[in-house]
Amino acid sequence: MLASVRARIIPTRKASAGWTAATKPLRGQAVLPLSVFASFYHKPARSEAFKRLSAEDVNYFKTILPSETILATPAVGGTADPAELDAFNADWLNKYRGNSQIVLRPKSTEQVAAILKYCSDNRVAVVPQGGNTGLVGGSVPVHDEVVLSLRNMSKVRSYDEISGILVCDAGCVLEELENYVAERGHVMPLDLGAKGSCHIGGNVATNAGGIKLLRYGSLHGSVLGLEVVLPDGTVLDNLSTLRKDNTGYDLKQLFIGSEGTLGVITGVSVVTPRRSEAVNVAVLGVPDYSSVQRAFKLTRQRCGEVLSAYEFWDASSMSAVLKHQDLRNPLSSEYPFYVLIETSGSNKDHDDEKLGGLLEELMEEGVVKDGALAQDDSQIARMWSMREGIPESLSKTGATYKYDISIPIPVLYDIVGDIAQRLEKANLYKPGSTSYPVRLVCGYGHIGDGNLHLNVVAERFEDKVTKIFEPYVYEWVSSHRGSISAEHGVGLMKRDYLGYSKSPSMIEYMKRIKDLFDPNHILNPYKVV
Amino acid sequence: MLASVRARIIPTRKASAGWTAATKPLRGQAVLPLSVFASFYHKPARSEAFKRLSAEDVNYFKTILPSETILATPAVGGTADPAELDAFNADWLNKYRGNSQIVLRPKSTEQVAAILKYCSDNRVAVVPQGGNTGLVGGSVPVHDEVVLSLRNMSKVRSYDEISGILVCDAGCVLEELENYVAERGHVMPLDLGAKGSCHIGGNVATNAGGIKLLRYGSLHGSVLGLEVVLPDGTVLDNLSTLRKDNTGYDLKQLFIGSEGTLGVITGVSVVTPRRSEAVNVAVLGVPDYSSVQRAFKLTRQRCGEVLSAYEFWDASSMSAVLKHQDLRNPLSSEYPFYVLIETSGSNKDHDDEKLGGLLEELMEEGVVKDGALAQDDSQIARMWSMREGIPESLSKTGATYKYDISIPIPVLYDIVGDIAQRLEKANLYKPGSTSYPVRLVCGYGHIGDGNLHLNVVAERFEDKVTKIFEPYVYEWVSSHRGSISAEHGVGLMKRDYLGYSKSPSMIEYMKRIKDLFDPNHILNPYKVV
Repeated sequence: MLASVRARIIPTRKASAGWTAATKPLRGQAVLPLSVFASFYHKPARSEAFKRLSAEDVNYFKTILPSETILATPAVGGTADPAELDAFNADWLNKYRGNSQIVLRPKSTEQVAAILKYCSDNRVAVVPQGGNTGLVGGSVPVHDEVVLSLRNMSKVRSYDEISGILVCDAGCVLEELENYVAERGHVMPLDLGAKGSCHIGGNVATNAGGIKLLRYGSLHGSVLGLEVVLPDGTVLDNLSTLRKDNTGYDLKQLFIGSEGTLGVITGVSVVTPRRSEAVNVAVLGVPDYSSVQRAFKLTRQRCGEVLSAYEFWDASSMSAVLKHQDLRNPLSSEYPFYVLIETSGSNKDHDDEKLGGLLEELMEEGVVKDGALAQDDSQIARMWSMREGIPESLSKTGATYKYDISIPIPVLYDIVGDIAQRLEKANLYKPGSTSYPVRLVCGYGHIGDGNLHLNVVAERFEDKVTKIFEPYVYEWVSSHRGSISAEHGVGLMKRDYLGYSKSPSMIEYMKRIKDLFDPNHILNPYKVV
Repeated sequence: MLASVRARIIPTRKASAGWTAATKPLRGQAVLPLSVFASFYHKPARSEAFKRLSAEDVNYFKTILPSETILATPAVGGTADPAELDAFNADWLNKYRGNSQIVLRPKSTEQVAAILKYCSDNRVAVVPQGGNTGLVGGSVPVHDEVVLSLRNMSKVRSYDEISGILVCDAGCVLEELENYVAERGHVMPLDLGAKGSCHIGGNVATNAGGIKLLRYGSLHGSVLGLEVVLPDGTVLDNLSTLRKDNTGYDLKQLFIGSEGTLGVITGVSVVTPRRSEAVNVAVLGVPDYSSVQRAFKLTRQRCGEVLSAYEFWDASSMSAVLKHQDLRNPLSSEYPFYVLIETSGSNKDHDDEKLGGLLEELMEEGVVKDGALAQDDSQIARMWSMREGIPESLSKTGATYKYDISIPIPVLYDIVGDIAQRLEKANLYKPGSTSYPVRLVCGYGHIGDGNLHLNVVAERFEDKVTKIFEPYVYEWVSSHRGSISAEHGVGLMKRDYLGYSKSPSMIEYMKRIKDLFDPNHILNPYKVV
C-alpha cells in the first residue's frame, strides 16, 4: 500500500500479478453489426453540382495512375467487388456510411495533383482519406465522392537525428513513425489510441490531440511544414524543416484541422522531441471528482517538467474496460474515479523521487485512496491499455454516442451526471440495469487539457435517445464558453452545430477561406463549414 | 574552476565579484543620431489610392474618440507639435521613418472598430502600432498613414490561476504581464530583450520568438484565442480560453505573424506555464563553433526537460557588450564563443545535480574551457543582461545591419565568417581596426531553434557596404533552405526578398489572404506581401 511509503522513497507496491500480457488494443476495427446503425444520422442531400462518375472518368484516371492503384466497381466501368470498398465507405464505428464507387490510391504528390486538377475541372467531389479512424464522419464519403486514399504514400523522406525533424509522406502510419523515431532516440509529439491505423496526414488534417498534448503541445506548434495539394492541382510547397520562420502568413496552420476541406496534405514536417530515458506510470484510485482536480494541481506542482500525461476515467468506464479487455484492476478495490499519471524525464532517480513524493503526499492528504506504480515496461503498457481500451470496450457494450468537449476543468464532469439524470427522468436509463435502452453513461479524458469524452452507450442509435442530449450537450457547452469539439473535429457530425462554439463572423470567414482555396467545393463536401 | 568539480557535486565557482548591480537594459530607445540613417532604405512610392488626411477626417475621429486620445499636427487641423509624433514615426533603431500627422490611441475594441470602418470606407491607410520595438520597419508608417496605437488598451481582462490562462488587452506591456503572472506563480511563455516596451499584441502580430521558445514553443501553440478587428470594422471574437478546440479552421493562426496587415489584434488569450521553483544559469567559454553544437547535444541529453534556454554569442559580440554595458566577463579569460544555459525545474537539488553533472562532463571532454554558475538571482540577471545587452551594445558601436536567419545548425555560423571575408576582400573591413567603414561582424542567437542573429556594424548605412551582403545573405540562406526571417518578421525591410524563403504559389496565396481580409489594402500598406 502506498500509505506506508516514506518520504522520498519510491513506493514498491507492484501492480496485481494476475495481469495478463499487454494486448494491443484493437484499432480501426468495426465491432458492431451494421444493423445497429442503419440510417441513424441525418444525411444531407447529394449536391447536383457534382458530376456523377462514369467509365470515361475512370479511363482518364487510368492514364494518370498505375492500374493497381484504382479500385472501381462495375457501376463506373470497373471490375472490383463493391464489398472491397466497404472499408473506405464506412468509418470504424460503422456509424457513417457513403456510397463511393471508386477509390484512388496515388503513389506520389504529382499523381495527387493530377487527380485533383481533373476533379476540379470536372466538378467531381473528392473525400481525402487517411487511416479512416475519425469519429465525426469526416473521412468517409457521404454519397458517391471519389475516395482519395493516401495509403500508398508512406515513405519517410528525411530524418535529422540531431534536430529530431522528420519529413514524411502523409500516408505514414503513426505507430510506424513512432517506432522509426524511437530507434533514433526520439518520440512523436502525439499519441492516440488509433495509432496503429491512423496516418500522420490525417492526424494533421484533423489536428489530432491525444495523450501527449499536455507535454508537447498541439500540432499547431510541432508541425513545421506541410506539402499540400490544392483542389486545382497547385502544390503548396511549405515543407519547411525550420523551427522558426516568420516570412509571411503561416498558411500551413489553415490546413491543420481543416479536415481535408481546403487541400490534401501529402507531406508533413514535424519536430520529434527526444525520448525520455525514464518513464514512470501510476494508476490511482480517487474518491471524487474534486479530488481528481486537487491531485492534478499537486501533480503539476511536484512533477511539473516531467509530467507527460494526466488522464482520468470514471467507474463506469472502468467497468466496461474490465469486462471487455483482458486486463485486471491494478488496485485492490473499486473507486469512483481513476487517474493515470505518466512522468518522462532524463534521470530515473529524480523522477522516482518526484513521483514517489507526490504519491505519498496525495495519500496522506486523502486525495488519493490507493495507487499502483508500474514496475516495468509491460506493466506500463497494460496501464495504458486500460485507458486506451475504453473506447473499444464501450463499442463492445453497445452503440456509443461520443461527445468530445472542452470545458473549464471545475465543471468538466458535471455534464456526465446531468445527462444521466435526464435519461433517468425520461425512463431511458437506470444505472446498473440492462433493461433500458441506455446501458451506460460515462466520462473520461484529458484533465490537463480540459477535455472530456462524454460517452453514452445504448442498445442502438435512435431518435428518442438522441433527443435527450442533442442539442442539450451543445447548449450546455456553449453556456460555459466551451468547445463542442475539443479534438475530434467537426466532420459531418457537428457541421450544423458549429454555431455553438464559433461566432457568426468567424463562421462567415471560414466559409470565405473555403471559397478561396476550393472555389468549386469539390473537397470533402458536406463537412465542416 | 569547474575542472575541479566532482561528479554530481554542484560547482561552486562564483561569478566575478566585481560585477556591478544588474542594470536594466535599455529597451525601445534610439541610440544613434538621425544623420546616420538618412534616406538609407528604399522607400516605396506613396500609393495614390489612399486618401490624404484632412481636418474633416480629424473632426470625424473626434466624434468617435475622446479628444485626449488624438494627437494631430496642424497639417491635418490639429494642434500637436510634429515633434511629439517622432516616437511614433520612427522605429527604435531610427532606421525607418514615416511622416504620419496623426496618432489615434483608442481605449476600447469598439473605438478601434469605428476607426477602421471609417478608414476602410474612406481609403485611409493605417499602421497599427504596439511598443514599436520591431526591427524590420513593420510598426512605423512609411508615408502619412494614420498611426493606430494600442497603448491605451492595457488591461488584464481575466486570469485563471489554476489553468494559468490569461486574457488581456493587446496593449499590455510584456514585462508588466510577466510581473502580473509571476505574482500568481506563472511565467509568460515568451521573453525577449524588448520586454520593457513591447506589447503582447505586437508580440502576437509579429509571432515574436525570443529566449523561451526552446522550452515553451511558439505563439502558434501558446496563444489560445484572439480578438481581432478587421479593416471593415468587423470584430472577430475568438478570444477562447480553451486549450483544445477543433471547431473549424483555426483563423487566429493567420493573425499570428501577420504584422498588422490583416487585422488589428485588440485582445489576446494566452496560456502561461507554471513558474519553476528552481532556476539555474551558467555561462560557458567554448573554444569553437563545433563545440557549441556538441555542448548543445549533450545539454539536451542531460538536462532535457529542465533546459529552458541555450543561447550563444561570439567573441565580437562579447567585446561590444563589455565595452558598452556595465558588466564584467564572469569567466577568467576570453573565448571564441560563449554559451548561456538556463535550467528551470521543480526541484532545486535535482536541477543542481543535472547541471553540475553536465558541466563537469563538458569540461572533462574539453568541449567547454571554463564556466561560471550564477549563485543568486542578481547574478542570474547579470548573465542574462550580457546576452540581452548585445543588440543595444552593437547599436552604440555604430549603424547595425541586422539579419535574423534560420539555417540548419551545422552551418549556422559559417555565414558570419563568410560575410567578414567578403567585406575584407572589398577593403571595407579589417578585424580589430577602426579605420574601415565596417567596425564589427558578429553572430549570436538561439542555437536550439537554429536561429542566428548576424549583425554587421558600420560607421553608417551606405550602399557600398550594403551591396556586399544584400542580396548575398538571402541567397545564402535560400541555398540552405533556411528562412530570411526567423523571428523578426518581414515588415518593410524584407518584403522584396520574400521569394528567397517562400515559393511563388505560397506568396500568391498570401496575397489572396490579404485581399480576403483587407480588400482595400488599408492596413499597414507597403509591408509583408
